[in-house]
Amino acid sequence: MTNLSIILLLSLAFSLSVVFAADPSTLQDFCVTNPIGQVCKDPKHVDANDFFFSGLHTAGNTTNPAGSKVTPVFASQLPGLNTLGISLARIDIAPWGVNPPHSHPRATEILTVLEGTLEVGFITSNPENRHFTKVLQKGDVFVFPIGLIHYQRNIGYGNAVAIAALSSQNPGAITIGNAVFGATPEISSGVLSKAFLLDKSTVNYLQTKF
Amino acid sequence: MTNLSIILLLSLAFSLSVVFAADPSTLQDFCVTNPIGQVCKDPKHVDANDFFFSGLHTAGNTTNPAGSKVTPVFASQLPGLNTLGISLARIDIAPWGVNPPHSHPRATEILTVLEGTLEVGFITSNPENRHFTKVLQKGDVFVFPIGLIHYQRNIGYGNAVAIAALSSQNPGAITIGNAVFGATPEISSGVLSKAFLLDKSTVNYLQTKF
Amino acid sequence: MTNLSIILLLSLAFSLSVVFAADPSTLQDFCVTNPIGQVCKDPKHVDANDFFFSGLHTAGNTTNPAGSKVTPVFASQLPGLNTLGISLARIDIAPWGVNPPHSHPRATEILTVLEGTLEVGFITSNPENRHFTKVLQKGDVFVFPIGLIHYQRNIGYGNAVAIAALSSQNPGAITIGNAVFGATPEISSGVLSKAFLLDKSTVNYLQTKF
Amino acid sequence: MTNLSIILLLSLAFSLSVVFAADPSTLQDFCVTNPIGQVCKDPKHVDANDFFFSGLHTAGNTTNPAGSKVTPVFASQLPGLNTLGISLARIDIAPWGVNPPHSHPRATEILTVLEGTLEVGFITSNPENRHFTKVLQKGDVFVFPIGLIHYQRNIGYGNAVAIAALSSQNPGAITIGNAVFGATPEISSGVLSKAFLLDKSTVNYLQTKF
Amino acid sequence: MTNLSIILLLSLAFSLSVVFAADPSTLQDFCVTNPIGQVCKDPKHVDANDFFFSGLHTAGNTTNPAGSKVTPVFASQLPGLNTLGISLARIDIAPWGVNPPHSHPRATEILTVLEGTLEVGFITSNPENRHFTKVLQKGDVFVFPIGLIHYQRNIGYGNAVAIAALSSQNPGAITIGNAVFGATPEISSGVLSKAFLLDKSTVNYLQTKF
Amino acid sequence: MTNLSIILLLSLAFSLSVVFAADPSTLQDFCVTNPIGQVCKDPKHVDANDFFFSGLHTAGNTTNPAGSKVTPVFASQLPGLNTLGISLARIDIAPWGVNPPHSHPRATEILTVLEGTLEVGFITSNPENRHFTKVLQKGDVFVFPIGLIHYQRNIGYGNAVAIAALSSQNPGAITIGNAVFGATPEISSGVLSKAFLLDKSTVNYLQTKF
Repeated sequence: MTNLSIILLLSLAFSLSVVFAADPSTLQDFCVTNPIGQVCKDPKHVDANDFFFSGLHTAGNTTNPAGSKVTPVFASQLPGLNTLGISLARIDIAPWGVNPPHSHPRATEILTVLEGTLEVGFITSNPENRHFTKVLQKGDVFVFPIGLIHYQRNIGYGNAVAIAALSSQNPGAITIGNAVFGATPEISSGVLSKAFLLDKSTVNYLQTKF
Repeated sequence: MTNLSIILLLSLAFSLSVVFAADPSTLQDFCVTNPIGQVCKDPKHVDANDFFFSGLHTAGNTTNPAGSKVTPVFASQLPGLNTLGISLARIDIAPWGVNPPHSHPRATEILTVLEGTLEVGFITSNPENRHFTKVLQKGDVFVFPIGLIHYQRNIGYGNAVAIAALSSQNPGAITIGNAVFGATPEISSGVLSKAFLLDKSTVNYLQTKF
Repeated sequence: MTNLSIILLLSLAFSLSVVFAADPSTLQDFCVTNPIGQVCKDPKHVDANDFFFSGLHTAGNTTNPAGSKVTPVFASQLPGLNTLGISLARIDIAPWGVNPPHSHPRATEILTVLEGTLEVGFITSNPENRHFTKVLQKGDVFVFPIGLIHYQRNIGYGNAVAIAALSSQNPGAITIGNAVFGATPEISSGVLSKAFLLDKSTVNYLQTKF
Repeated sequence: MTNLSIILLLSLAFSLSVVFAADPSTLQDFCVTNPIGQVCKDPKHVDANDFFFSGLHTAGNTTNPAGSKVTPVFASQLPGLNTLGISLARIDIAPWGVNPPHSHPRATEILTVLEGTLEVGFITSNPENRHFTKVLQKGDVFVFPIGLIHYQRNIGYGNAVAIAALSSQNPGAITIGNAVFGATPEISSGVLSKAFLLDKSTVNYLQTKF
Repeated sequence: MTNLSIILLLSLAFSLSVVFAADPSTLQDFCVTNPIGQVCKDPKHVDANDFFFSGLHTAGNTTNPAGSKVTPVFASQLPGLNTLGISLARIDIAPWGVNPPHSHPRATEILTVLEGTLEVGFITSNPENRHFTKVLQKGDVFVFPIGLIHYQRNIGYGNAVAIAALSSQNPGAITIGNAVFGATPEISSGVLSKAFLLDKSTVNYLQTKF
Repeated sequence: MTNLSIILLLSLAFSLSVVFAADPSTLQDFCVTNPIGQVCKDPKHVDANDFFFSGLHTAGNTTNPAGSKVTPVFASQLPGLNTLGISLARIDIAPWGVNPPHSHPRATEILTVLEGTLEVGFITSNPENRHFTKVLQKGDVFVFPIGLIHYQRNIGYGNAVAIAALSSQNPGAITIGNAVFGATPEISSGVLSKAFLLDKSTVNYLQTKF
């Protein structure tokens, strides 16, 4: 057996140590995993840093076409959140910027405005497609029920900042424009022109932009 | 007390009889309600018709712009489904018609093609927005995971028919075009032009069409 | 280290690659696994075929004593269904054949008749043991609540075909006759004769038949 | 307004007082209801007796054909259990008596023997129909997973007593013999003779016995 | 019928109108209720204000013995949160003040510090009772898993402010000191002196203080 | 390749055999795991002993300061309980002994007294902190809702014995005194003196005792 193969074998064994820890634990107050979808880390090796994340006071960079930036603190960023059904995010929006219409397939969102003025809204499912909208100031709170399309827009003169909480450690986000016009591979322009009442050249134009 | 008031009082009392049935039931194999969100109907008054619906063999009328029609069998149509976490729908699509991109906020969908040829697809959430697509023939089955945007298109010469099952008795449906461009009241054109990279006149045109 | 051992080691490492994928994923729109109960397949290696199954238009072979055949499309047949809480099945029943009394320990069932005439029913739990029964024609829909014993019988002149949906990706099925008289090892005949009011020789006879 | 109508109105108002209590509660540590399926009792009117039941030390009457008796402490007997997902039962079995094969559509069962010797078993779902069986003495514990058919038999010389716990406040119980042969109205003998490989006269005989 | 009785009757009818709305809704994107535990408000009467709360920018009054104040935004304060599994709270702590050890019986908590320096910690369940603790600065995030005892203390020179999110619309809070020494009626001092290794006079003293 | 390395490799492969069983199973009536949090054991290797535990008739040793002993039958002791949402425990309390105030972060508890006289109680969450208490005799049953602090005390002349069931296979237990004063590492005495209105020397004394 060569040195290389020993190293291979040992490193394999080591990478398995968390998963096949021989010593049973009587405790499952949490199940820290990384990446998501794997078995629980041995509680003995879990420490306070598994429940910690820093940097949410830093403004996100909004110099992009939408003029907004979401900083997630989901289970991928904070492994201790796994299985616990909650997460946070910071939303920065430059003046007249938009956090464009999107939905979270696995979470309700509740947000509170720390700074600025936001126009927010969500749309109910078929057949009504009712639009619930509200202008929010500092200290205001609003709820976007699970799975519904919603958006935020900064309608004030300065930057707007909000803290959002989501009812899943891995809520997912589907930005409608990106999903519809920016999917990889592309959705057939025949489908999109029919669905959005746009001619195919406009659809093709949008697909190159997204 | 006038006759009218007696009738009012009695009809009120009657409408309450289901809710406050004095006789306790030891059974909750089901909780039939109508409308959704109300308390359970007294099991004694439940019969086989509460679990029955007819007419799913009838083709939906596809003479509409999308060229498609969904016939739901949800808890609103079949009250016995309440709390049981499942429902059905029939999908009819005329040649080159589209069941346009939509999501179900509370359900995964699985469908099987009874007739015709369907191009189907779903798009994953951010950041990948991967497009999983497949052409389905009679007898083929496909799954659309909960909350993700998906669509079907008839790419054959005749009508296409599919039976879909959904993992909720009240899955909801959000047709993206309608929700975004047809919400009531309208979403501000400023939000939509920024989100979809369209000029405001196109947005306004789309809002009048939906 | 011999070639054989290298192959062994590499194949072991390879079989682990899905489970210990080093690259974290921020995405869990689905968790494809095979077999059931294992960790999620790396989303990067998931494609449309993981959500696809074909052949549900093919009639099941009903030349058996019950005169019926169920073709499942559960997570074992369609790995993309894992964790998504839904599945399908096709039920074929020859004239006067029976899909015998059974229950699904983890699912409600809803079915629609594609062809023929079915007598269907379910029985509620103790103490009432009420029998909800209905004759179904093409296009009719019926619900069998989770865990309750139910059956279907073809009471028409031709074959009957139904599509059933179940509220679990792995609903399980307990055919009462098989479970009670065909268990391995056998249930003591003393238990069964007392439970079914049958003499032991009849019980023994049934145990040889199942 | 007559006295009668005043009484009617007031008694109606009174019967509503729990449901429409004007004073919002910030607390839902429990949701006591009676009967099951109704809205929560006002927490202010809940007291310790809502969480209390007495008499589980009293032996059930086993002078019946099965030689066994189950004394339930479900939400119907102990309203404080509502929504809490657990309940208890006492099982008494006379020598050679049987708690006949049954399933709980909504619960796993775990039991411990207080007295006597029990032969117990459960059968897994299709296709294996494996029979897991064990002889239990005083202090032994056994688990019957949710929805699976199981039974207990006293194979000792004295009475047997067990305490069972179930993972639902309203687990339901389906005694196979009663459900199949004792349903109301009867299941067609054609279905049962085919399903249980019995001739119709035996089926009819069993249906009169159950 | 007197005017009074007509008013009584009508006001009764009115208070019922939401609950017994005759017109079925096909929609349950949300279930707004007030108070908690009641049936859903008719979606037609729901508007954006049901999803709105204001005032979270206002500092809580910390002039109390603990030197801290929690301002909740739960379903009682924001009825649109009902059934959606999430809520918010603002935590203000004066220098050296403490949000004393408590647990949430129905929720995990995640918080981020807006201002100041917090020492935070949680303790795992038996037998380890491990203490996970961390000092948090502005922008830091920490997680307290469901049901575990946790606390926050301001160890800086100025006021500390945090926004917490909880994985339930009605998380509940059990402040250990209040629950143990301030319960109504009192817990027997015999229980407490044994449990906390305190003599009865100290227990009695604590009971008068809480 | 040395013999040692072959043994290493084979033992590694063997330890993996359960996890990567090549043969897919169509069955998940249960998911036996040990330790908790790992993948399911191959159903083929599961037998009746995985659902079995013995010894609950043996009195726990109550010669300790609290005068009580809890004997758990959780998933760690009975691996077949995994995922099934239920477990048992035996509680022994010597005369005037106490099962001190504790909570279960993941379970409701229901108990029945087999022997002796118990004073039991639970305390609701803030702001009421109501104390629901009751004296229980043999055969009495009481419920402690999920997450709430509760206790039992033997107020009779002989030993008291109870069987408790919990609505989780791994309920966890947080003994308040141990968690607060016995955490490792210690909670700062500044936090505890403020929270419990005790001077620091008393806090330090308690911390040495627990």
